[in-house]
Amino acid sequence: MTSDITTDTSPAFDPENPAATIEAMAHRCSNWGRWGEDDVHGTLNFLDDGARVRAAQLVTTGQTFSLAQPFNAEGPQKGWRRRTNPVHTMTDTGLDAEYGDQGFPFGFGGADDVIAMPLQCSTQWDGLGHIFDHGRAWNGRRAGGVVTSEGDQVTGIETAADRIVGRAVLLDAGRALAGELGLEYSELPDGFALTPDLLDRIIDQQGVSSQVGRGDILLVRTGQYSRARREGWGDYAGGAAPGLSFRSAPWLHDREIAAIATDTWGFEVRPTELNGAFQPLHQIVIPHMGLYIGEMWNLDDLAEYCARTGRYEAFLVAAPLPVTGAVGSPVNPIAVV
Amino acid sequence: MTSDITTDTSPAFDPENPAATIEAMAHRCSNWGRWGEDDVHGTLNFLDDGARVRAAQLVTTGQTFSLAQPFNAEGPQKGWRRRTNPVHTMTDTGLDAEYGDQGFPFGFGGADDVIAMPLQCSTQWDGLGHIFDHGRAWNGRRAGGVVTSEGDQVTGIETAADRIVGRAVLLDAGRALAGELGLEYSELPDGFALTPDLLDRIIDQQGVSSQVGRGDILLVRTGQYSRARREGWGDYAGGAAPGLSFRSAPWLHDREIAAIATDTWGFEVRPTELNGAFQPLHQIVIPHMGLYIGEMWNLDDLAEYCARTGRYEAFLVAAPLPVTGAVGSPVNPIAVV
Amino acid sequence: MTSDITTDTSPAFDPENPAATIEAMAHRCSNWGRWGEDDVHGTLNFLDDGARVRAAQLVTTGQTFSLAQPFNAEGPQKGWRRRTNPVHTMTDTGLDAEYGDQGFPFGFGGADDVIAMPLQCSTQWDGLGHIFDHGRAWNGRRAGGVVTSEGDQVTGIETAADRIVGRAVLLDAGRALAGELGLEYSELPDGFALTPDLLDRIIDQQGVSSQVGRGDILLVRTGQYSRARREGWGDYAGGAAPGLSFRSAPWLHDREIAAIATDTWGFEVRPTELNGAFQPLHQIVIPHMGLYIGEMWNLDDLAEYCARTGRYEAFLVAAPLPVTGAVGSPVNPIAVV
Amino acid sequence: MTSDITTDTSPAFDPENPAATIEAMAHRCSNWGRWGEDDVHGTLNFLDDGARVRAAQLVTTGQTFSLAQPFNAEGPQKGWRRRTNPVHTMTDTGLDAEYGDQGFPFGFGGADDVIAMPLQCSTQWDGLGHIFDHGRAWNGRRAGGVVTSEGDQVTGIETAADRIVGRAVLLDAGRALAGELGLEYSELPDGFALTPDLLDRIIDQQGVSSQVGRGDILLVRTGQYSRARREGWGDYAGGAAPGLSFRSAPWLHDREIAAIATDTWGFEVRPTELNGAFQPLHQIVIPHMGLYIGEMWNLDDLAEYCARTGRYEAFLVAAPLPVTGAVGSPVNPIAVV
Repeated sequence: MTSDITTDTSPAFDPENPAATIEAMAHRCSNWGRWGEDDVHGTLNFLDDGARVRAAQLVTTGQTFSLAQPFNAEGPQKGWRRRTNPVHTMTDTGLDAEYGDQGFPFGFGGADDVIAMPLQCSTQWDGLGHIFDHGRAWNGRRAGGVVTSEGDQVTGIETAADRIVGRAVLLDAGRALAGELGLEYSELPDGFALTPDLLDRIIDQQGVSSQVGRGDILLVRTGQYSRARREGWGDYAGGAAPGLSFRSAPWLHDREIAAIATDTWGFEVRPTELNGAFQPLHQIVIPHMGLYIGEMWNLDDLAEYCARTGRYEAFLVAAPLPVTGAVGSPVNPIAVV
Repeated sequence: MTSDITTDTSPAFDPENPAATIEAMAHRCSNWGRWGEDDVHGTLNFLDDGARVRAAQLVTTGQTFSLAQPFNAEGPQKGWRRRTNPVHTMTDTGLDAEYGDQGFPFGFGGADDVIAMPLQCSTQWDGLGHIFDHGRAWNGRRAGGVVTSEGDQVTGIETAADRIVGRAVLLDAGRALAGELGLEYSELPDGFALTPDLLDRIIDQQGVSSQVGRGDILLVRTGQYSRARREGWGDYAGGAAPGLSFRSAPWLHDREIAAIATDTWGFEVRPTELNGAFQPLHQIVIPHMGLYIGEMWNLDDLAEYCARTGRYEAFLVAAPLPVTGAVGSPVNPIAVV
Repeated sequence: MTSDITTDTSPAFDPENPAATIEAMAHRCSNWGRWGEDDVHGTLNFLDDGARVRAAQLVTTGQTFSLAQPFNAEGPQKGWRRRTNPVHTMTDTGLDAEYGDQGFPFGFGGADDVIAMPLQCSTQWDGLGHIFDHGRAWNGRRAGGVVTSEGDQVTGIETAADRIVGRAVLLDAGRALAGELGLEYSELPDGFALTPDLLDRIIDQQGVSSQVGRGDILLVRTGQYSRARREGWGDYAGGAAPGLSFRSAPWLHDREIAAIATDTWGFEVRPTELNGAFQPLHQIVIPHMGLYIGEMWNLDDLAEYCARTGRYEAFLVAAPLPVTGAVGSPVNPIAVV
Repeated sequence: MTSDITTDTSPAFDPENPAATIEAMAHRCSNWGRWGEDDVHGTLNFLDDGARVRAAQLVTTGQTFSLAQPFNAEGPQKGWRRRTNPVHTMTDTGLDAEYGDQGFPFGFGGADDVIAMPLQCSTQWDGLGHIFDHGRAWNGRRAGGVVTSEGDQVTGIETAADRIVGRAVLLDAGRALAGELGLEYSELPDGFALTPDLLDRIIDQQGVSSQVGRGDILLVRTGQYSRARREGWGDYAGGAAPGLSFRSAPWLHDREIAAIATDTWGFEVRPTELNGAFQPLHQIVIPHMGLYIGEMWNLDDLAEYCARTGRYEAFLVAAPLPVTGAVGSPVNPIAVV
């Protein structure tokens, strides 16, 4: 049913020639200049107030789902690129209040806390300044002119503070493909690539509420997080994973989605399909397409609800913490149905 | 119109006898045991799915408002109780990507960042483990049994991860009272106490969309943040401020609101009305009432909208970052109208 | 030659009865009250100015050795008890200076940096408030009266700011015992316990410069750090390790050393010799003996020098960073010979 | 008596032409290439083992002085360039140990802590990568090739880990000049510039132990820290201060000192003597001369000792924490006399 959008204009795909393949795909999927030279919002431009009104009408039961993983020291990070798990510490506790040295009058006592964490250590948004291609950031800007040690001075995550509110569509790839793949759990194996054909097939299988179009926030559940919860993190942070195929870039581009989020560390399949590349799909969709990517989301509870009801859409509010100049942000996304 | 709720059972109020006044008010406003011995949600219990469905129906234009202040080094904190402003630093930048030593292939480049901050340094929720009275936390629990150096092990902010979604009502006290107080700006002076009578008067003046009832999230704009933006922070973090009167506790209690948030550092009036007390209203509403308090919210843009349209209600999603065991959380609250 | 100090008064040692064994040893090795009720220095009292003058006279070549491991993200920590490796980030760089947006006049440019780290993530001193036994801290004080969320308010590491300056003696256990143990490298295997007899034997073997007495700072090289450098960290932070035997407590006590440091994470042998205990030697020497413990020191270069020259003593300055109220401190110990 | 070193070849000094004055001084004082193209140590090359042996012989009483200020939240930082005071927090306390939820057996209890801080928030060394002139770092290297977001990859502070050990000479400028300036306290006023003539006069006045020569570590006490301790920090961190005159650069250069440290935030006089410049003396001595600068040292106790004994020299060990790639480091300098 989504077949009216053609993806057969995909550029040549040569796993042995990553440089040329990436360049061709960047050209194919570029949105540079689409919203003017000064644009800082990228694909969030597809999401307008009218879409938000329609999305709010999806609320029929009032049930809410937090799509965040817990933020704590037990997270998946292992120190790569200085990414630790959150270090949350107390500056005052109930024990101190009982002990009575807090200096407050009339029985008043308090607890207080601080945190130190990478902005992308757990459930997060990638900002548009997070990834560059050949020294170019979103909309063709010079990378060094966008993100300095002062942070992202053009497309900092604060530019999205009030924007990521709209219709979410869940593609539960793990569940939809479990049968044909003969999976024990509704979880795709590591290294499994979600190609355009598979995305279309999942939509067909899930039914009409799964149609993906302009301004939608696409949620893709691979099941890897479910597996990590059952079996331990392993290499969840940076290792092999199921995810979007590099070939899905035109599909994502042509549907004019506002954002995409998955339950994996890096959204795209790993190992990558292009020999020797790092995250080639990131390299396309962030700097060239201007797409917001959510990573390490917890889609399990929402997926259960969707499977039970057959409704795969929700009203989503996923507001990043407006840290000035940040290239990413922790987020507690809320889906309301 | 809200006069059907009686507040004349308020206990004796003696500024010269804070201890007795606090104790009587705690007794008057206690919700201990109301939702069972094991309750961890406090007044969020008033906010149910039905209320959320009705709240979603308030979305008619799709316009969104971020109610967060910027999170950056220019914030109001001065180091009290080790509360600094956020320290946001980059671990990789666009300049590094251009320089070419990031070690990625095929032109891939990235920026990444970390943050260190108190959880209550800017726009925030106070969790139920944040304040104690005489060694007692929410629902009568022993403070030291709730919050240790491991964090809040009972009422940590993660318990509210999916709950703070509902109808918000804005009481724009600064604007509503500007005329009778002869204010140059729609900003209450520091030390101005919002008593029950004044709250009722504001509701009457703003009209029917301002009615406050069970499960609502009450937003009170004093105007102090507008003043800080114009004149500089001064003692915004911890100094004198307009805010809720200690006497408003029964009013807040009887209306069965789910939460309250203001545009000031500490929600209640400072200096306090009780001689020598610190934050006596906190001492009532958090441990005894179980009320969620939002502080340092930016209500200015929403207030402009409300003043222009005469509609003072919105659909609000204000999901805390689910830091396990945190006694507070930064938040980017989103109002949708 | 150190046989004039008797250790045969060691209490009963029963691996199957850790509680009683720990209690007896605590009694045997206690220094509570030895330097008065108000003492905060513990065994550092053994180190006086006269000893420092004699120690300075050991400087004959002017050669210096830094006994610190590198402080960086590649360290051994894995997150246990929220202990990460140091997260060092730049707030300004040379690339930014070149880019020219730093705002300084006349060609001035700068780089600046911040760090977030556990105080005991790398080469360190344990302060006297780091370990308790049955709720008692050094000198018999109530643990909760010493260390609150405000830090160690009695024996904070700042009390040792100017004190850890004196004679160091290196016992290179890995090298001394390599022959009789048939080791390929001069590195003791994990789980190897250094008992009093072995310590005496090492001293005899190394010769007269190794004699250990009052006020000395004892350095014990097991070789585990050398192994970690060759083979990777593995479980260096918290796993099995060679180290001081629980039975060495009286030996350490009776020699009246000022401090001890090793090249391992935890100074004492692991797994512990007492069934089910955690770090029983810590439990004796910190709260009962008042002994300063250095951990994760890099003794390799100094050991090479000592082996080459046959001199196993040096002038040592190992000044903790005086973080007010800290229960430990990173340190860059300097040995001068 | 130090008059045998001529400084009359100082370049033209024109406060109204900072650019030319800085350039001429850079040329006058450059050490680029002096120790080879690959040098990373700068003036620390002047400090050799022979000097260290002589310095150790200065130890005659064994008395030690910690020259560090306290590291805590009460420090002078106000947030400029994201420089906060240290945030030291506990991850476990004695209260927790007493409470009994730490999970350790047999009465074992522990306290642990973490810190987040700028590396230059309190007593510190500036590394050679801290300051650039016209995009050039020490020894003429490209600034961006030295310090990236990965840190200083050439002259990181770890290169000085075992080097800053030698003879310190204290010039107590505040005390020496108090008489002729008619000062109430032995503290120079803010804005007071220590020119070469004054430095020579102080040395003459203090006597022979104050002679400054090759490899010495020069300590200059202005008295500003004493004033801050008495009157409060005020603008200690970044405001007006007494300090070294820009004109002292040739004096510092020609004496071939290894390092210099003062009791002020920025070592050089502020406001600067060059109209509109920021820290022009830094701009000369770090990138061109390769000089290590210590700032915010506490020289008061040592100064008392020196005044009392008439001896102004000591054995100094001031080992930076070897944070890999850091452009500065906190330090607890120890003087032994």
